Order: sequence, then structure tokens, then C-alpha cells
Amino acid sequence: MTDPARRVHTAGVTDGAPRFSDRFALTRVDRDIFTGYCHAGAPLRAFGGQVAAQALVAASESVNCDDGRAVHSLHGYFLRPGRTTDPIVYLVERPRDGRSFSTRLVRAVQYGETIFTMSASFAVSEDGPVHQRGMPSVPGPEELEPVHLPVGNADPRFRDLGYPDERLLDVRIVDLTATGQNSSGNAQRMTWFRALSGLPDDHTSHVCALTYFSDITLPGTTVVPLQPSQRSGFAITSIDHAMWFHGDFRADDWVLFIQDSHVARHGHGIARGEFYRPDGALIATAVQEVLMRRQAD
Amino acid sequence: MTDPARRVHTAGVTDGAPRFSDRFALTRVDRDIFTGYCHAGAPLRAFGGQVAAQALVAASESVNCDDGRAVHSLHGYFLRPGRTTDPIVYLVERPRDGRSFSTRLVRAVQYGETIFTMSASFAVSEDGPVHQRGMPSVPGPEELEPVHLPVGNADPRFRDLGYPDERLLDVRIVDLTATGQNSSGNAQRMTWFRALSGLPDDHTSHVCALTYFSDITLPGTTVVPLQPSQRSGFAITSIDHAMWFHGDFRADDWVLFIQDSHVARHGHGIARGEFYRPDGALIATAVQEVLMRRQAD
Repeated sequence: MTDPARRVHTAGVTDGAPRFSDRFALTRVDRDIFTGYCHAGAPLRAFGGQVAAQALVAASESVNCDDGRAVHSLHGYFLRPGRTTDPIVYLVERPRDGRSFSTRLVRAVQYGETIFTMSASFAVSEDGPVHQRGMPSVPGPEELEPVHLPVGNADPRFRDLGYPDERLLDVRIVDLTATGQNSSGNAQRMTWFRALSGLPDDHTSHVCALTYFSDITLPGTTVVPLQPSQRSGFAITSIDHAMWFHGDFRADDWVLFIQDSHVARHGHGIARGEFYRPDGALIATAVQEVLMRRQAD
Repeated sequence: MTDPARRVHTAGVTDGAPRFSDRFALTRVDRDIFTGYCHAGAPLRAFGGQVAAQALVAASESVNCDDGRAVHSLHGYFLRPGRTTDPIVYLVERPRDGRSFSTRLVRAVQYGETIFTMSASFAVSEDGPVHQRGMPSVPGPEELEPVHLPVGNADPRFRDLGYPDERLLDVRIVDLTATGQNSSGNAQRMTWFRALSGLPDDHTSHVCALTYFSDITLPGTTVVPLQPSQRSGFAITSIDHAMWFHGDFRADDWVLFIQDSHVARHGHGIARGEFYRPDGALIATAVQEVLMRRQAD
């Protein structure tokens, strides 16, 4: 609740090196009302992973975490494109503050219309049974080349800090060309992510980073099961975004994102993913539904 | 919009044979306000799958489906236990009606408090790429014995029509004792479901049935990866419920629900599932997070 970096919007401030955490910076208008600027994901269209992360910051600011409660899930719907040229307003409602759980509803509004809605749930950690799927054996990030990402405003249609930006983000793709088809015919995608600038220690910053990471590669996973010649030519737009968080991690250390898509039909596709810490702990689950429209030639 | 069976609450009406579709019957109070009674899932606690299905009926009643738009996803949070002794009020908001998508937000209220919130999205069917994971080869329902379910008010603590009720619902479990452990150590669960009384032809009725079915077996899937001796003794409560629908199906014909749980930690567990039609089409995806609390001896 006291981190000034989360209170003051600094996107677009160009003195000093950009920091990844600036992407989640909001300005407080009133107790449960915030504004934030987003950079582009598609030309002039706000990047959904950043909108979701900013909505999560807004929700988190309204939760008293003195008893250790932390966000464990979020469910968002993208209703309209956000614009990068004006701020997005985040309105937080508080449907419940219970002994173990707090629930928040966030509406992201721009030009008088709701562009995104999100519910998020916060809970105290409890004792319970522990199990998880094991992390597969894959090449570590140090064995892989970083993906070259555009820096800053390389394309003038992408405003603000630009997306994605290799000064802030290290992305390394595990080549599954030979081995990615599993026995049931669907294809996995595996990506290592790391925020390059140090993040604050609060859990929300790391959860926001994971939310942001996931929206970079998960939507496009819906075309991976197609024949290579059929994968291009689609405009892929996120319809929703759901995430569940299962434990501690740092997003400025490496996280492995394992993704696959099990179905596409009627112009929609679904992709699911799991994040792992380098030590193999399964730390988050993600699901997205996307709209897949063939682009005009 | 014109099906009277969805407009008039008939739960508890005992003249004539009970119908499965009665479980989703609502009374309209105003254009976007409805009431409905739920039966119990746990003693005196409304069954979550029925609350979610009734919320979906309320949302669907507010959507003009003349252009063929149909629900393709829902995301709900269970905030407080619903009671079976009084009606639940469903309040519908309409954040967006676009050319291709309609989004609805539903609050389920009882005794002045929000017990459940749900967002749901409706879309027109579009052309796009088609792929899906194949249905595994499993014994068909005709090769399996029906699960014996309580009938009616066998336990007086379970009000209304009782849950589950073998007069309305046929459930057959594929025995995976020998083969259910897959190579990565997690365990699958496979269940055939069918509504025994015929359902109306509208898509919403069948989607509601699938939502109801999924909440019967998906939460308990979170203990399946544990050693058999460790699986009992937990009170398992749904935290959220997300579903995505991928195509046409009838819930009064058989559907196969394949479920697994990939992670549990900090008292929470996640289960994911996929529904298939008997011909192998993948028709729906479900995810639930549950709270797993050890019960006092």
C-alpha cells in the first residue's frame, strides 16, 4: 500500500532508464479509482496483458494484506480495444472482505465505455495437501539465445514504451520443432521469461509481471497445432484472460511458461499454460480464449 | 427468450415427474432481475453448479440471440454460501452489446449480500481454423454401471429436489484404477454424464446442464493425485468456476468429462476438464479452483 512506484504514473518519462515495473504504475484519483497509460500490443491498441496487470494493481491497492492475504486468481474479459493515447480509468468495487478471502471487481473505462472487466480474489495462505505436475526437462535459458525485441518507439504506431522491449524483458524460446508434437496431436510451446530491471519485493509486482508475460505468447499458441503453412494470416485478439497463482516466485528471475492449445472452432481458440520456477515449482496457471479472424490480403 | 419453462420457477413442485430442466427455472421480477431456488450440494448449502447455471439463464435472458449469438464462456466466483431455504436473486448488468459479442455481469444476492458473481460472454459463430485434442479411447457408458445417487429428500438436510438425483441424472464412472496415472504423475478422472429427462432444444439449457455436471465431479478431482490413503478428510469448496463452450451438443445425450488436477498448494487446488461428445468432438473446457480444508475429526 505504500510503494510510491505503484502510485505515480511514470510511463513515457524518458529521463533515466526505463523500468519494467513502470508498466504497472497507476495514479490514484480517489480511494478505489486509478488511471494508467498503456503501450500498444497491436498498433494503437493497448496491450491486454498490461491492462490486466494495471487492473490487478488497482484491485490490490484496495486489499488490506496485513494478514498476508495475496492475489491467487483473476478472471478478465476484454470488451473493447483500449487506446494508448489517453489514460484508462480503473474503478474498483469490493464485493467481499471475509476472514480468509477478499474479492474485487475492476472495470477499466475509457471514453465513457467499459473496455475490460476483471474479478480478482485474494486469500490467506492455508495448510493443505501439496501435489503438482512435474516440470519437464528442457534446455535452460542460459543455453538459448534471447529473442530480439523492438526497442522503444521503433514503430511510431506503437506509443509509449513500445512492446515488447528487450531493454526490459528477456524472452528465450525453447525450440520444440522436433519434439513439440505430443502423442495426442497437440503442440506445446515453451518460453523462458525474465524482467530485466529489478522488481519491487511486493507479491503484486511479480504477479503483474507474470500476467503481462502470459499475454505475449499465450494467444498465438492457438495456431501452433495447425500445419505450419496454415498458421499465419490470422488477427488474434484476446477475449478473456484467467490466471491462478500457486506460490512464491520472482519475475525478475527466470520463469518457464509451458503452453498448449487443445481446441479451436467457430473462430475461437483456447490456450492453456503453466508457469514454473527454475527449481521446478509450478507457480501459476493461465487460460485464454482468443478470437481468430483471417486478415484481409 | 420465449421458453416458459425457463420463466417460471417449478422447483419443489411435486405434481408430475421432476425434470432436470426445472433446476434452472427462474422467476422474472423485472427485465434483468430474476429469482430462483437451489437445492443443496453440501447440507443446507446451495449447489454451486446450480447457482452458476441459474446465473447463466439470467444472463441469457438478456441477450438477443436472433443473429445466432450463444454463450461461449463464463467466469464465476463463489463469495458466500447460498442457502436452499430462500430464493437467490440474480441481478444482470449489460456491459456490452457489440456486433459480434455481448457481455453480461450477474450478481447473485441473498439476505442482502452477494454470494456469487459471474461474467459471461455471448458471440456469433465465425469461420476460423479448426483443431482439437482427440478423445481418448475409453469404455462407453453402455459398458459401465450407473452410479447410485440419492433420490429426492433422502437426507432431510438436503432440501428441494435433492442432489444428485438418479431420477434426473445418469452418471457413469470410467474405472482408471489401473491406467489413470499418466507419465507425468498426475491422475485423470473420466465420467460420462447424461440428463435423463429430455431438455428443451435451446442451447442455454444444454450449456446449463454441462455447467451443473462439471461441478459434481471437478472439485473432488483435486485430491486424485494424492495417495489413496490421503484423499479423504477434506472439505472441498469451490472458489471459482470457468467454462468455455466450443460447439453444439445435447446434454440429454451422453457427454464424457475428462478431468485432472495439476497442482494443489496453500490449501487451494486446481482442476481442469474437457467435455467430449460421443462422436469425439471436444465441446467444452472447464477450470475450477477449490479450497481444501482438513475436516475436524
